[in-house]
Amino acid sequence: MQGNKFKLVEETLEYYKKLALETLQPYFQPKEPRKYLYDLLPVYPNRGGKGLRPALCIATCRAFGGSTHSALKSAAAIELLHNAFLIHDDLQDGSDFRRGLPTMHTVVGMPIAVNLADAMSAISIYPLIENRDTLGGFLTHDILTEILHMVTQTAEGQAIELGWMRDNVTDLTDADYFRMTLKKTAWYTCIHPCRIGALIGSGGSLSLDRFNQFAYFMGVAFQIQDDVLNLVAEYSKYGKEIGGDIWEGKRTMMLIHLLNNCNPLEKSKITAFLALPREKREADDVHWVYGLMEKYDCIDYARAVARELANESLKEFTIAYASAPDSDDKRFIQQIVYYMIEREL
Amino acid sequence: MQGNKFKLVEETLEYYKKLALETLQPYFQPKEPRKYLYDLLPVYPNRGGKGLRPALCIATCRAFGGSTHSALKSAAAIELLHNAFLIHDDLQDGSDFRRGLPTMHTVVGMPIAVNLADAMSAISIYPLIENRDTLGGFLTHDILTEILHMVTQTAEGQAIELGWMRDNVTDLTDADYFRMTLKKTAWYTCIHPCRIGALIGSGGSLSLDRFNQFAYFMGVAFQIQDDVLNLVAEYSKYGKEIGGDIWEGKRTMMLIHLLNNCNPLEKSKITAFLALPREKREADDVHWVYGLMEKYDCIDYARAVARELANESLKEFTIAYASAPDSDDKRFIQQIVYYMIEREL
Repeated sequence: MQGNKFKLVEETLEYYKKLALETLQPYFQPKEPRKYLYDLLPVYPNRGGKGLRPALCIATCRAFGGSTHSALKSAAAIELLHNAFLIHDDLQDGSDFRRGLPTMHTVVGMPIAVNLADAMSAISIYPLIENRDTLGGFLTHDILTEILHMVTQTAEGQAIELGWMRDNVTDLTDADYFRMTLKKTAWYTCIHPCRIGALIGSGGSLSLDRFNQFAYFMGVAFQIQDDVLNLVAEYSKYGKEIGGDIWEGKRTMMLIHLLNNCNPLEKSKITAFLALPREKREADDVHWVYGLMEKYDCIDYARAVARELANESLKEFTIAYASAPDSDDKRFIQQIVYYMIEREL
Repeated sequence: MQGNKFKLVEETLEYYKKLALETLQPYFQPKEPRKYLYDLLPVYPNRGGKGLRPALCIATCRAFGGSTHSALKSAAAIELLHNAFLIHDDLQDGSDFRRGLPTMHTVVGMPIAVNLADAMSAISIYPLIENRDTLGGFLTHDILTEILHMVTQTAEGQAIELGWMRDNVTDLTDADYFRMTLKKTAWYTCIHPCRIGALIGSGGSLSLDRFNQFAYFMGVAFQIQDDVLNLVAEYSKYGKEIGGDIWEGKRTMMLIHLLNNCNPLEKSKITAFLALPREKREADDVHWVYGLMEKYDCIDYARAVARELANESLKEFTIAYASAPDSDDKRFIQQIVYYMIEREL
């Protein structure tokens, strides 16, 4: 797909994702109410995401001497939570597609989609409680605390982003974007998966804050690339409507850069466009905003910021993983940093 | 309010609700993002529900020899979860009012309301994890397991009810209603609060299944009374639009009884009414359905079923609480059974 440059990354992602999904199988067994709940549980997980989160968790655990098995239930829980987040996120954003197929709420209706994700969030706690049998009470407690912080940070990030959209906030800076993305994305996509992996791998002996900077930079770089792909990728690869973020009025780094660099007339027109409810926005206007993003080099700017973040992340990597001996898992984590910004889907 | 008949019940509810809300205060401290998240957290809890769930939990704990303090965090967690459920429930049902004021999603918009309840659900787990400091690892683990069962059962019940409405299911029996209400209401309103209270009060020595029948009968009786009040209570007392359940097409015991007892022409007209999206239903039709419910004695029928359930619950009470010595808490639990079906709000 990307030549052989990311062979280790892609193979490792695929393998650990498969293990995480297998670990989730017991929770995906068909039972009543099937049609309105349990048959829907595996739908998003089975659509084939990248599996970044379980892979970061398992690989970090192994890099610090832990077994694959010891991290599996935590990795699986994070993956299930991620899929629950996506269902509510798609509804909140009014997204039409997820991973190439219609979003959950468009298929089953809003009420059942909201409830499904609620059930998935609750069910994701089961493997974390079951950790107790193999990891003991102390680690189980610490992992649960990590997960709670993860979920509340994610909700805070969502609140900020949704609030910006609802109130049509247009005076945002890159620093606002970084803070929102730290909360919305970085904690649950990178920071906590690494922290939890290290917690398990080291049996609780490592100080976990060492991973925060490394995984924060990586997480924000990941989100910027995600937003860039939303703008430029082809539909068949990315599985979302192209420019969907513009339709949704999402405060991406590109939109924030545009608002801070366009002329006053353009800014007032963009602001008026963003003030419309989504269904009143028109394709011509979306294309016009996209054209302005090209005119003001917003995409190049965002890509450059993402690269800078990736470079910083790699510097932090050498500190965060210093005490881990060389291994494929450690190399995977190092190489995934550039994968985050060079991936095409 | 109801003379002195339920003086003990009402005073006990008020007192334990107050304690549960005080226990939640540390989680309600203002912090960022305030406007889009944390300032909204206490809104539903502060609107003054009855506090049934924390009261059942604390009173059962005390009835079996435990302290108020030992049950507080669990009782508070259940109350916060309840309020999170309400926010999603109001959205799913398209309800306009909750406790006399506009529902959360009508005030802050759907996206922020969905996210708020997600945050509240996550935050409710904190006090449960903090139990470890005072109750130890074993009880904390068992309480968490109870809570997970509680949340998943509630989601199953919601799924069934929402599915019936979405697919306009009209061939339902009382048994279907009992099963749905067991899941949607009884587990989280009565069964688990009692079980968790007993778990803490007895230090884990009681078999908890003894509470299932008692609290199941009470929980379904409670829900029937809730639905009856929705039909007949005055707006000012009940705080919801009158007949809101008919507007929403909710499968109450009254609607199920009506569908099973009206004539074929009426049934086909009711079915057509229920097939409409909510916003297309008209006041005249709602009143017509209400009139049919009167014609076929649906409300009297539902009240009679609720009374029968309350009688059964009281029989089970003597078994479930046999080993608890006489106390105000035990008397409160006994008396709350009839309160469930005689309350006027």
